[in-house]
Formats: sequence, C-alpha cells, structure tokens
Amino acid sequence: MSQNIYDDPSFFEGYSRLQRSRLGLAGAPEWPVLQAMLPSMAGLRVLDLGCGFGWFARWVRQAGAVSVVGVDLSERMLLRARAETSDAVITYLRANIEHLTLPASSFDLVYSSLTLHYVEDLSKLLRTLHASLSPNGRFVFSVEHPIFSAPLEQKWQVLASGSKIWPLNSYLVEGQRVTDWITPGVTKQHRTIAAYVNGLIDAGFRLLRLEEWGPSEAQIQEHPEWADEIHRPPFLLMSAQA
Amino acid sequence: MSQNIYDDPSFFEGYSRLQRSRLGLAGAPEWPVLQAMLPSMAGLRVLDLGCGFGWFARWVRQAGAVSVVGVDLSERMLLRARAETSDAVITYLRANIEHLTLPASSFDLVYSSLTLHYVEDLSKLLRTLHASLSPNGRFVFSVEHPIFSAPLEQKWQVLASGSKIWPLNSYLVEGQRVTDWITPGVTKQHRTIAAYVNGLIDAGFRLLRLEEWGPSEAQIQEHPEWADEIHRPPFLLMSAQA
Repeated sequence: MSQNIYDDPSFFEGYSRLQRSRLGLAGAPEWPVLQAMLPSMAGLRVLDLGCGFGWFARWVRQAGAVSVVGVDLSERMLLRARAETSDAVITYLRANIEHLTLPASSFDLVYSSLTLHYVEDLSKLLRTLHASLSPNGRFVFSVEHPIFSAPLEQKWQVLASGSKIWPLNSYLVEGQRVTDWITPGVTKQHRTIAAYVNGLIDAGFRLLRLEEWGPSEAQIQEHPEWADEIHRPPFLLMSAQA
Repeated sequence: MSQNIYDDPSFFEGYSRLQRSRLGLAGAPEWPVLQAMLPSMAGLRVLDLGCGFGWFARWVRQAGAVSVVGVDLSERMLLRARAETSDAVITYLRANIEHLTLPASSFDLVYSSLTLHYVEDLSKLLRTLHASLSPNGRFVFSVEHPIFSAPLEQKWQVLASGSKIWPLNSYLVEGQRVTDWITPGVTKQHRTIAAYVNGLIDAGFRLLRLEEWGPSEAQIQEHPEWADEIHRPPFLLMSAQA
C-alpha cells in the first residue's frame, strides 16, 4: 500500500509552495523535454496517473484530447483539481494506482509525472496499463532518477579536492527508501533503470525514448541553483508504444 | 581516433594478467548475464567488435556459429588470438571500429564486449552496424556503466558516517575521461545511458533488454572483493534487434 503523504497537512502545505505546484507545467523544469516526448493530442483519450492538481489534464484538453481521466490518491489534491476544472470530459478519480483495474483498449495515451516511484509492484501496473491502451497507444512518464533515489544518504557532499559529488551507493539494492523531502519520512521505491526498461518490454511495450533530464544552458542562466543537477540527473523520462 | 592503449607494452602486460584475460569468458563476472542475452548461435554469421584474444570468437563457433569476424585495433591481441585459433571460418581483422565499413546484411549477430566506451562517434557506428545486420539480426554488447565512467575522480570514498560511496559527478557531461587503469592515461568516452538507448533507437534498433550488472549472492560468496559493486554497477549490457 502506497503511503498517502500528500494528504498529510504539513506535506501538502509544503508541496503547494513548490514552483511546480504554483506555476503548473511551466514551473516544472523537465516539462519541455517531457512534452517533446508526447504524441499529437488531437482526438486522444488520456489517462493521467498521479494527476495532482490537474495541470496536465487541463493542458491536454487544450491540446486537443477528447477525454481525460485523472487518478490520484490524495483527497486534498483532487479537491483543488476539481475546484480549478470546469470541463465535463475531465474526470478525477480517487484511487491507489497500485490496485487500479482498467477496461481494455480504453486509452490512447497514459501519462504519469513523478508518481511511479511510489508504486511497489511496477510490473503488475505496467501490464495493466499495456492492456488499457489501444493498439500503438503511448505511455509517457517521468520518475525520480534511480541515481537520485539510490543512496542511503541523499545529500550532496564535497570531497577533500573540493569537488561536489552525489554520494551514490546501494544502486542495485532495490526497494524502499525513506527520505526527508518537504517533511520527514517520505517513502519511495528505488528501482534500477533496468527495472523500468525491462518492465516495459516484458509488459509488451516498445521503448521509443529514454531521457535523463538535466538543465539546459538557458535554464542554468535563469536558475543558477539548478547547475549542480548536471552531476546527477534528478528525473528519468521514458516514452513507449503499446 | 581511438587510443591504441592495448598495444602499449606495460598496459598489455597488465591487461594480460587480469582474470578475464587468463580465464577468458569464465573469468568475466558479467558473462553469465551477457550470455543469457544472446540468441541461439546455430547457423549465425557473427561479427565481434573488440575481439581481443578471441575467446568469444572461439566460444561462438563451438556454440554453432557458421562464421566469425573478429575486429580489434591491437596488433598484440590479434597476434595471440591468431596463435590460439585454428579454425578456418574465424577471421581476425585489424581495424579501428570507428572507421569500419561493412557489407549490408552480412551478419546475424554483432557482439561487442567492453569496447564501445572507446568509440567517439557512437551514432555513426550504430547506423553502420544496423545496416550490416540481416533483418531481425541481433546486436548484443557491454560497456563500462555510465555511472562508473562519469566521475572526474573515479575512486571509492568513505563518508563521515562510515558509508562507502561512489563519488558521482559530471554524469550529464559527456565526452572524454582520462583515468588510471592498469597504466596512467587511459582515454575512454563517457556517455549517458540515454545516449546508448536513443542511439540504438535512432539507428533503427528495437531494444530487447538492458541489464546493469552486479554480482549475484553466489558470486559475492566466491569473490568477497566484488561486494561493493552493488553500490554502482560496473557494466551496462544491452541487446537489440535490427
């Protein structure tokens, strides 16, 4: 059972203050790369796993999707998503995506932003998603990069030489990581890049693209505080075809 | 132009003493995983890029391949490979694989062990290989894992807490790394996992498997000195279909 940290009042308050919560897609530094991995939206039926405040659901409708189902475990996030949405073909559904059952061939695009690293049984979910997609339907998602989620101590270090480094260890030891992010005790699932790639392939997907996001020169100019991200990418992005 | 370090007398002598040089495939810890990624060898025409002492070429013939072309830049390695091979359908060829031209649809399997991280223009090579493979032919290879090749200081560190860590930095900064391995000044090309995956896809391959090798429990029992490799996989292995 995934932890429902987003309904913790302190966590929710902190999360709501993040740039990506205030500004939506435009506030997510990896969005331009993720957007480039999406198919043309015209006429698509879309499923958004971990829809949060509904930023993507609303964007995808403007981009031409004919229907969107947004799923999230957090009641607080869905409350705000519903309040900010007035579109009859966007449906918000409260559910644990680990236990989702979906009708066959009912979506043309499944999208998920920074959510799958909370899922314990990824293989089961990937098989469910593959079956829910129309033939050649797309699955586009981002997760915390495994290099980011692996270490037991997830904090930058400085070597005697002065070099800033990410203290990587336990990369091949998959499973739960408890970290302090916004509030203490946030539980995520660390898995390797191989686990994501082979999980997709085993579920029947064809991998179309894999991106390890880091800031562009222009982004570093605008946000110098992102410069260190070139040392270890924070996000892993993939697109696959059913 | 790739560095021809294997023909440096000191390097060659040190390399010849490695377990994988003395014992061949059985001395390479990642071989069981790589072997499991290979297709059935019966009747295949095989190209081996970076064939070294010819261990794989000889194995693949025993496994049923009908012909093998082994390519390497090192004269010293090919000298020994030829001396240890008496098989008319194994051909050893001295060439820089960066500048290889190959006849179309002339191989059913291209194999490469720990060689592509010396190649500067990977995209060009991948397109050459794709064209050289028969329809549905396979490409199976291993490289130094990008997590291994990224850091500017490639040495284990111990944090104040006592944790052993791999000092990751510059992961997204692709290009040359000069390291001390066997002898000082060995030049390799660091690239990201995304570069390998997207390079394959852009050349027309379909990715079949991606493995990040670490020691099994049984291997750690036998070689306790390999235990730290779980912290950062030393090898990246992939198989793809043309």
